[in-house]
Amino acid sequence: MDLNYDTNNIFARIIRGELPAIKVYEDEHTLAFMDIMPQMPGHLLVLPKVPAVTLYQLPDDAASGVLATIKKVGKALEQAMGVDGSSVFQHNGSYAGQTVPHLHFHLVPGPLKALKAHASEPADASELQTIAARIRSFIV
Amino acid sequence: MDLNYDTNNIFARIIRGELPAIKVYEDEHTLAFMDIMPQMPGHLLVLPKVPAVTLYQLPDDAASGVLATIKKVGKALEQAMGVDGSSVFQHNGSYAGQTVPHLHFHLVPGPLKALKAHASEPADASELQTIAARIRSFIV
Repeated sequence: MDLNYDTNNIFARIIRGELPAIKVYEDEHTLAFMDIMPQMPGHLLVLPKVPAVTLYQLPDDAASGVLATIKKVGKALEQAMGVDGSSVFQHNGSYAGQTVPHLHFHLVPGPLKALKAHASEPADASELQTIAARIRSFIV
Repeated sequence: MDLNYDTNNIFARIIRGELPAIKVYEDEHTLAFMDIMPQMPGHLLVLPKVPAVTLYQLPDDAASGVLATIKKVGKALEQAMGVDGSSVFQHNGSYAGQTVPHLHFHLVPGPLKALKAHASEPADASELQTIAARIRSFIV
């Protein structure tokens, strides 16, 4: 679908199970896991598995599966973090701040104005595991 | 679908045509118009017409229509503003920064770090009209 899709980008490798990720949810069409450089505690990424670099390459018929997963993990994220709201954001193209060339939605339990810049070092893995387990416990 | 949906919120009134908006695209299921307090030149809002306060209330089967419209106007927005990238963001709940209680997606021709705070005064209407006309000219 996209002539420029790099099948060895890190998210493609996570989808194929070649690289590890702290997953909170996975189904046939989507995958959700912890951002290892969170801009806010609980920062999640939701990906469609279809090879698309940007939202503009996502087939319309893939949208319902992505929405279903964002709703499922986003509501669990709010409950896990004890807050009553969440934000979604998504970058298309390096000009707009996209760093990994596989379409991904950021999901955070709060307002964008509370985002920190991406850290230069990954967050503590055990802390991420603890948050992920708590999010998973709220997924229905 | 949501017991708390206020049928007189300003976006519901825009959808019904009771309040004006500088529209760039409209179809049976969605509406796209200029944010009158843009956080970046070209700042657009894309709404599903279905009465939902947050993403969590959007029926899964409404997602494809919303995606189709975001793709259509987002690509036109990039071309209109002469940039090679765009970002989407979306707030659920006042805690997360949602100010109008009808689900809406923000679409901007650049990175989130370039966002200004919402202005306290609306942008110049003729400037918005000029940008909107340019975006409409790129919609295919």
